[in-house]
Amino acid sequence: MKTRTILLESRPQGMPTEQNFRFTETELPPPADGEVLLKALYVSVDPYMRGRMSEAKSYVPPYELHQPIRGGVVAEVVESRHEKFPKGTAVVGDLPWQEYIVANGKGLNRVHPDLAPLGYYLGVLGMPGLTAYFGLLDVGKPQEGQTVVVSGAAGAVGSVVGQLARIKGCRAVGIAGTDEKVQYLTDTLGFDAAINYKTAPKLRESLAAACPDGVDVYFDNVGGPVTDAVYSLLNNFSRVAICGQIAYYNATEPPVAPRVESRLLIKRATMQGFIVTDYAARFGEGIKTLAGWVKEDKIRYEETVTEGFENIPDAFLGLFRGENTGKQLVKVAEYGG
Amino acid sequence: MKTRTILLESRPQGMPTEQNFRFTETELPPPADGEVLLKALYVSVDPYMRGRMSEAKSYVPPYELHQPIRGGVVAEVVESRHEKFPKGTAVVGDLPWQEYIVANGKGLNRVHPDLAPLGYYLGVLGMPGLTAYFGLLDVGKPQEGQTVVVSGAAGAVGSVVGQLARIKGCRAVGIAGTDEKVQYLTDTLGFDAAINYKTAPKLRESLAAACPDGVDVYFDNVGGPVTDAVYSLLNNFSRVAICGQIAYYNATEPPVAPRVESRLLIKRATMQGFIVTDYAARFGEGIKTLAGWVKEDKIRYEETVTEGFENIPDAFLGLFRGENTGKQLVKVAEYGG
Repeated sequence: MKTRTILLESRPQGMPTEQNFRFTETELPPPADGEVLLKALYVSVDPYMRGRMSEAKSYVPPYELHQPIRGGVVAEVVESRHEKFPKGTAVVGDLPWQEYIVANGKGLNRVHPDLAPLGYYLGVLGMPGLTAYFGLLDVGKPQEGQTVVVSGAAGAVGSVVGQLARIKGCRAVGIAGTDEKVQYLTDTLGFDAAINYKTAPKLRESLAAACPDGVDVYFDNVGGPVTDAVYSLLNNFSRVAICGQIAYYNATEPPVAPRVESRLLIKRATMQGFIVTDYAARFGEGIKTLAGWVKEDKIRYEETVTEGFENIPDAFLGLFRGENTGKQLVKVAEYGG
Repeated sequence: MKTRTILLESRPQGMPTEQNFRFTETELPPPADGEVLLKALYVSVDPYMRGRMSEAKSYVPPYELHQPIRGGVVAEVVESRHEKFPKGTAVVGDLPWQEYIVANGKGLNRVHPDLAPLGYYLGVLGMPGLTAYFGLLDVGKPQEGQTVVVSGAAGAVGSVVGQLARIKGCRAVGIAGTDEKVQYLTDTLGFDAAINYKTAPKLRESLAAACPDGVDVYFDNVGGPVTDAVYSLLNNFSRVAICGQIAYYNATEPPVAPRVESRLLIKRATMQGFIVTDYAARFGEGIKTLAGWVKEDKIRYEETVTEGFENIPDAFLGLFRGENTGKQLVKVAEYGG
């Protein structure tokens, strides 16, 4: 069986480009005893992957040069020598960017096409949804009547954060980068207010108007000047949940900024970094709760789906051009197809 | 009764000077019903007062121009028309820098010269000791076997923080600004290691050597490059308690520095500002516990005492020249004298 694979050809300096990726075609061995042959259906592209393309040590090891890029993939078992995953099973796991994959079942989780569209398991019912769930509820600790601000609000994580804030009785304010996204946040997702940080003449003033009672929880996906503007509105005893810093993923120099410590001191505020995998023991609880809210239409969920294995790198690069609304996926093949 | 008073004559630009203060002499009325006449015994000078000399809004209101500076004072009741505070009682309170004061008893707390030297109620059994107690134990949450780093370690707060860390079974590492202070921390106070940040050729490397297992709790009194060096050694799930930022109290420009958010994210670290007065409801617990440890000699305590009311401004200015070891006090009069 032949398969195409996408390798890390070179480490990006600054913004990644198509040249950092290379497609190869290899011959796969048939699955051995205890293994399955998987057909990739949906491939997730996520901002955190930019970090793994660098050499720098982080909370996940860097991708190796000339080895496959990997990440969240929904796949179908097309040949099985593993009793837990019979032919036809849909699974999700951390897998290489490859059309067909031989895997031993470790780290694979069964998913159910009848309960939710398969792509959801890479989004609202996958890492992004769980990131929103634990980051907002456990780190941000929103209380009814408080104001929650989220940056990167139209993204896979941010769009869920704002809706969870609403479910918890908070005022939800989103920051995004296009007028379409801003409209989507307020009109479709029910955010109380949303701001286009690229066009707001004075971001701090727009934010202050959107947050008349200040900011109690800030869920930060982006960092940068957007974040500095939010800091200026933090209330006493407020919480900042640091989820991502996409503004810097392509930075070649360590970013400098006004120091935040004095403000945290004066406001008795807390700033906490978190990583969703630290909550792995509670993923079941998170998925179940999120699935319930999706079913009740309390959480609306949107995907941006690019078609075709060959378009994975471009879909990834699009994340840094701010092109996606909601979760960005690449559809590689049809389930049962 | 005549008294001298120290007024805020002008707001400092950058480092305060003697010119920001003015001495006046006024006639005090006798205490009315429900009032006491106090004689100041010990006046506390503290770094946070620099903040109150500025116009900027903070967690305590600014001092008013041409009005008395105020702060922690231990005083003796020399004339009483208040039944709770008979003549001869020693009290502590937030009071003006004044030799004699007429007060109505509000905010005054009785202190006991038999239990501890009266100056201690402005130090280890007062705001600085309580700041160390709640900041380290409640915000820093040190666990046995972990490493606690404290900056401004030889100061009134820092010297208690390191000793509390030892009591909790932690490795205590102090950062201070003279060799004498460093020696005092290790030889007298029992810190496991201490570093002179002014002479260490590479601060980060000295710190790394002093903290072979990284840093689990950082109690920050100073901010600035010292703090940035500590950040580089933070462990997973570490806590930063922001107590003070003396490096900036005299800054005329907002300080900029490398952004800390990405590091907090990667390390899942928490940074929290706190203010001791938020723990007012638990001061009794704190004082009792600290007094016990002082009595058992588990906490050693040192004061730098300047003599004479007229030397209060200079003792205050000395804080920013790094002159004091332990708590800086000014002795104004003798108890019962």
